[in-house]
Amino acid sequence: MTERVKEILSWYSSDNPGTLTNLARLLNHGRLAGTGRLVILPVDQGFEHGPARSFGPNPPAYDPRYHFELAIEAGCNAYAAPLGFLEAGAREYAGEIPLILKLNDHDVLYDEADPNQALTASVADALRLGCVAIGFTIYPGSAHRLEMYSQIRACAEEAKRHGLAVVIWSYPRGSGLSQQGQTAIDVVGYAAHIAAQLGAHIIKVKLPTAYIEQEAARKVYEAQKIPIETLADRVRHVVDCAFKGRRIVIFSGGAFETEEKLLEEIRAIREGGGFGSIIGRNSFQRPKPEAVRLLHKIMDIYAS
Amino acid sequence: MTERVKEILSWYSSDNPGTLTNLARLLNHGRLAGTGRLVILPVDQGFEHGPARSFGPNPPAYDPRYHFELAIEAGCNAYAAPLGFLEAGAREYAGEIPLILKLNDHDVLYDEADPNQALTASVADALRLGCVAIGFTIYPGSAHRLEMYSQIRACAEEAKRHGLAVVIWSYPRGSGLSQQGQTAIDVVGYAAHIAAQLGAHIIKVKLPTAYIEQEAARKVYEAQKIPIETLADRVRHVVDCAFKGRRIVIFSGGAFETEEKLLEEIRAIREGGGFGSIIGRNSFQRPKPEAVRLLHKIMDIYAS
Amino acid sequence: MTERVKEILSWYSSDNPGTLTNLARLLNHGRLAGTGRLVILPVDQGFEHGPARSFGPNPPAYDPRYHFELAIEAGCNAYAAPLGFLEAGAREYAGEIPLILKLNDHDVLYDEADPNQALTASVADALRLGCVAIGFTIYPGSAHRLEMYSQIRACAEEAKRHGLAVVIWSYPRGSGLSQQGQTAIDVVGYAAHIAAQLGAHIIKVKLPTAYIEQEAARKVYEAQKIPIETLADRVRHVVDCAFKGRRIVIFSGGAFETEEKLLEEIRAIREGGGFGSIIGRNSFQRPKPEAVRLLHKIMDIYAS
Amino acid sequence: MTERVKEILSWYSSDNPGTLTNLARLLNHGRLAGTGRLVILPVDQGFEHGPARSFGPNPPAYDPRYHFELAIEAGCNAYAAPLGFLEAGAREYAGEIPLILKLNDHDVLYDEADPNQALTASVADALRLGCVAIGFTIYPGSAHRLEMYSQIRACAEEAKRHGLAVVIWSYPRGSGLSQQGQTAIDVVGYAAHIAAQLGAHIIKVKLPTAYIEQEAARKVYEAQKIPIETLADRVRHVVDCAFKGRRIVIFSGGAFETEEKLLEEIRAIREGGGFGSIIGRNSFQRPKPEAVRLLHKIMDIYAS
Amino acid sequence: MTERVKEILSWYSSDNPGTLTNLARLLNHGRLAGTGRLVILPVDQGFEHGPARSFGPNPPAYDPRYHFELAIEAGCNAYAAPLGFLEAGAREYAGEIPLILKLNDHDVLYDEADPNQALTASVADALRLGCVAIGFTIYPGSAHRLEMYSQIRACAEEAKRHGLAVVIWSYPRGSGLSQQGQTAIDVVGYAAHIAAQLGAHIIKVKLPTAYIEQEAARKVYEAQKIPIETLADRVRHVVDCAFKGRRIVIFSGGAFETEEKLLEEIRAIREGGGFGSIIGRNSFQRPKPEAVRLLHKIMDIYAS
Repeated sequence: MTERVKEILSWYSSDNPGTLTNLARLLNHGRLAGTGRLVILPVDQGFEHGPARSFGPNPPAYDPRYHFELAIEAGCNAYAAPLGFLEAGAREYAGEIPLILKLNDHDVLYDEADPNQALTASVADALRLGCVAIGFTIYPGSAHRLEMYSQIRACAEEAKRHGLAVVIWSYPRGSGLSQQGQTAIDVVGYAAHIAAQLGAHIIKVKLPTAYIEQEAARKVYEAQKIPIETLADRVRHVVDCAFKGRRIVIFSGGAFETEEKLLEEIRAIREGGGFGSIIGRNSFQRPKPEAVRLLHKIMDIYAS
Repeated sequence: MTERVKEILSWYSSDNPGTLTNLARLLNHGRLAGTGRLVILPVDQGFEHGPARSFGPNPPAYDPRYHFELAIEAGCNAYAAPLGFLEAGAREYAGEIPLILKLNDHDVLYDEADPNQALTASVADALRLGCVAIGFTIYPGSAHRLEMYSQIRACAEEAKRHGLAVVIWSYPRGSGLSQQGQTAIDVVGYAAHIAAQLGAHIIKVKLPTAYIEQEAARKVYEAQKIPIETLADRVRHVVDCAFKGRRIVIFSGGAFETEEKLLEEIRAIREGGGFGSIIGRNSFQRPKPEAVRLLHKIMDIYAS
Repeated sequence: MTERVKEILSWYSSDNPGTLTNLARLLNHGRLAGTGRLVILPVDQGFEHGPARSFGPNPPAYDPRYHFELAIEAGCNAYAAPLGFLEAGAREYAGEIPLILKLNDHDVLYDEADPNQALTASVADALRLGCVAIGFTIYPGSAHRLEMYSQIRACAEEAKRHGLAVVIWSYPRGSGLSQQGQTAIDVVGYAAHIAAQLGAHIIKVKLPTAYIEQEAARKVYEAQKIPIETLADRVRHVVDCAFKGRRIVIFSGGAFETEEKLLEEIRAIREGGGFGSIIGRNSFQRPKPEAVRLLHKIMDIYAS
Repeated sequence: MTERVKEILSWYSSDNPGTLTNLARLLNHGRLAGTGRLVILPVDQGFEHGPARSFGPNPPAYDPRYHFELAIEAGCNAYAAPLGFLEAGAREYAGEIPLILKLNDHDVLYDEADPNQALTASVADALRLGCVAIGFTIYPGSAHRLEMYSQIRACAEEAKRHGLAVVIWSYPRGSGLSQQGQTAIDVVGYAAHIAAQLGAHIIKVKLPTAYIEQEAARKVYEAQKIPIETLADRVRHVVDCAFKGRRIVIFSGGAFETEEKLLEEIRAIREGGGFGSIIGRNSFQRPKPEAVRLLHKIMDIYAS
Repeated sequence: MTERVKEILSWYSSDNPGTLTNLARLLNHGRLAGTGRLVILPVDQGFEHGPARSFGPNPPAYDPRYHFELAIEAGCNAYAAPLGFLEAGAREYAGEIPLILKLNDHDVLYDEADPNQALTASVADALRLGCVAIGFTIYPGSAHRLEMYSQIRACAEEAKRHGLAVVIWSYPRGSGLSQQGQTAIDVVGYAAHIAAQLGAHIIKVKLPTAYIEQEAARKVYEAQKIPIETLADRVRHVVDCAFKGRRIVIFSGGAFETEEKLLEEIRAIREGGGFGSIIGRNSFQRPKPEAVRLLHKIMDIYAS
């Protein structure tokens, strides 16, 4: 157990040894083991965007085994997916990679201004599949947000009692926010804080822009001169918003443009004190060797 | 136990022996036993469309015993029906045909843009009636879809714990979709994927057309040149969408035109790697000898 | 045990001996004992229409004991009522008449296009009051119908597990139907079928007219030349819709005009293979001797 | 035990000895003990109308102990109040006065056409506070009425199982009724009947006017010449509506005008066969000696 | 145990010794121990207003440990916060300061006329974190108020059974009230009374203005000449509204203007018989030594 991992675990001192053990498993697995940084492979896009849009560009990815193998070969810290995808490989790859079961999901066959998520798996499912954590998405900014907060609360309580860790995907969305506001720095920071207050061990947010959505927040950012100009600044601020760095915050990339731009973002996350990345489409939508190469580059930045 | 059935069971490795036993019962019953192909008789149309529309064309079919006998005589893999129909014969025909209890149903006496289903039976009912599986309908595209996903999640968890298999009827429908979109290839593939992610062992969808409903999907189908021209192409794509063939996907026919057209469809399902058919109105709405003859023809295609 | 009762019980072969015992109690009580026909006294009109409208014409009927006595003196098969009315006499008349506890009710002090019912009693109440069955109303055609189906499903499962029989009042009503459609032959047949699929042992519908509400149904009625001209034809068709006569279907009268017209209807029910009648306002809104005389006339027709 | 109390208890023969014991405690306490008449002090107006409007006219009444003492000194049969008020004195005055815990409440800080009530206490609370009964308000005529009926059903079942009595405040209100209709004779009679059917032991309604709200009811009142001209007539009719006098019905006063008018109303209740009064604002909004004097006058009328 | 604390505990005589012990811990901790006055540090503003708006002015406050230390150093009676903040320090500071777990929260990323709160923690969480009480917010005046009342009822019952105390934040808000009405004297008094009736041990309201919102209330205030001119008058009235002083009522400040104005308010609370203050932004948004100095000044006023 490295000093850094010990330090990180110390932030979760109210949790039982079971949950700490599972958090340690996440932190001590793969190429970034022991560094306190994480790269997680998430594959819920088949549910969230549709299978052809997700896997059409790299057809082997239709096979659920593909993602287990990608995560293992790339040396990710963990693999996160909905119930069906995990059921389709949990026994074959048992013990080879920490698993995170997404407990809720959403599809885009019905278009709504205020999105919600369906419960699609349970803590009992996570336990029977050997997972280390549950994953849960909330949409701050949606009319249905309070319902999602209440659901994750109940799931998180049950998960912690059973020694699992809790990962919250906090994605601002809904009629309470402008399109631009979904990645505004004030909104992303707020979203990270809400997830932390809801009891998340690991928080996943999008990389924020320098835009500020809320007037009441703008005044404080300006008055206090909170630095938000560079991406690293903004990452640092979001990490501050999550209990001043005492909760693990990881980031998903913005829209993919070029590999160099992606790696630039990774460097900014690292520089800003972010704990790592969750890399979905940028990994499984390209041939596996190519994906492994890219993931290793990303991990190398974090490990450096 | 044939190699093919063993192979199919291997895809469900996270399930307990009880569920695998029931899946094996389904796969090893009737004229297609051991082939890995299935023809299932479903009779929920009395509830879904009304009794006269369903059974008027062949009045003996008003009698619940008729369908047990039809399924047995034709050598179907299983018979699926709502609570009342199964209660009315489960003891008389105990052990003669695997049963699937439909847990939810819908009627057409109230017309709504966004349909939902009522829970009409339970996992406990399925167990007391000696069923091998539960059946459940979801309507991706409906404003109520998240509620249905959450319900099947809960029912499926309970069913699997008790050693039952799970069959999901995934029927895109509702205000999120155009009429044509309900059978669009992207939508049907998406619907099959959602059912797979929700943990279904067997997925039932409609035969898709070459129409594409979602703009975001169209780009991928065109860019990746996903073949969708022939019906066999489309069946193959839908099977890919269900974990690249590692989930059993079966199809209901399009509108009946001629027997030859129906058999043409069966050949396309077979050619595209589909696992079989669910044949309702095309079987019970004609005289039993005629129905048995047609079902045998269908099974012969699958067995060939 | 008469052959006819044995035959009827044989249709419910999935039920446990407890439930069959209670069904037998219903069938073997009163002047029609053993005939396989039933006349049941229902008194929920106080709740459904108000006490003055219900009991004003015959004031002794305000007293809950009155109805127990009427049902006993007339030799009815059973007495059905809401919680309060049964609590008010279940001990005094214990063992004298089979009781059916209505589990849900509705009042007319709030007028709505899509009616619903409130749960007003439980299976546990039915057991403590010594009832043989629960009664439940559904409104096919109402926007709330799926909720009612789900409720009766849960109540019926619990009732059957505890050895009670299940009676469903299936009353098409709501914005999905025209006024005339509430008693249309296709709609009443559909309503009877839904109740049967929901697991009812006894189904109560209104006498249907020859009107057809649904276009899709009309085509079948015409194509198949389903006879619906005489009332007996229509009764026969509704009985067919309820599992081809393998579920007990009873009828409530149309609007009362003359005694002769009422008896004419009874003869048609009998001729069409209906299992009996549920006679509420036509019995308790007249002096008791008069009611007993009329009920005996009705029973005589059924017994003939 | 007086003959009259024995007689009243005999109407509740389906209840267990625990509930009958608590009913007997209510009937055998205070100055009207044994008479079969009741005067109950209810103090939920602080919640329902606000504390200043309720207690401002007599400031000692802000203190929860005041009402216990008032009920005890006046010799009321019972004291009814929400959770907070009972918690604030149940130990100090344990055993000195039968208590009724109001399980639901409503405030007027949000104005709505269709009022509902919040559950604010439980049967378990009633038991731990030593109460003899639960109290529950329903609003027939409100769009939310079915929800309230279902709630009291569940609470009443639990209460009766634990040996408590059930008191229902049945207050017609909501968009289904005109303002005048809330106290219309047909509506009040209907409301009393609904409460009786829901299983209430004691029913509390407002004094009705001679107005008739529902056209369908008017026809019966006129055809049957139901006497509703005098207040005593109307009380008698409401008592008839509650199982022809076999349920305890008590009345709250109309708007206070003069003491003589109030006493006139009490005489009419007595003459019409009403079982007593629930006197809130007319008792606690005046100095205690004055209130005790008035309550004694009222009790004297009932005892005469 | 001081006489004053003994007296206060005597008001809660229906509670079990566990709850009284926890109430005593609150009253006997910190610089005001034994005085019967309380100053509590609440830090839920990160959730309620966003982290930057809350902690930007004093960046060390992003760290959850900061608030434990501030509360301990200042000698507050207790520290109240949402789940995440308490989990992040409950072990490190175990036993050093009584903790209150906020069970529900709300954010401002979705703007609604009728606010509601999400359940974000449970009584079981409060117990495992060693808390002395649960905290709960209600919004009288909101269309969702009845739901919140029902939720706190259930939580409070569970909390009391497990020996925890119950603190209710009663904040009038929603479409039932004008902006000015949220702090109107009649509304604040009403809100305090509702909280007391819901079973709160400690009630937290805002300082009221002399404005009167409800016409029906105005008449009483004027007729009874209830003194509401000075802030001390109004505090006294609110304390009266909470069971004439037999429930602990504490106040949050109005908008911060100057330190002198704040201390003036504290003096008015003290003079009016208020039990103390809950000081959030005025304490954690300034440097800690400065905050401790101010809190000590406030406590000195209460202790004087």
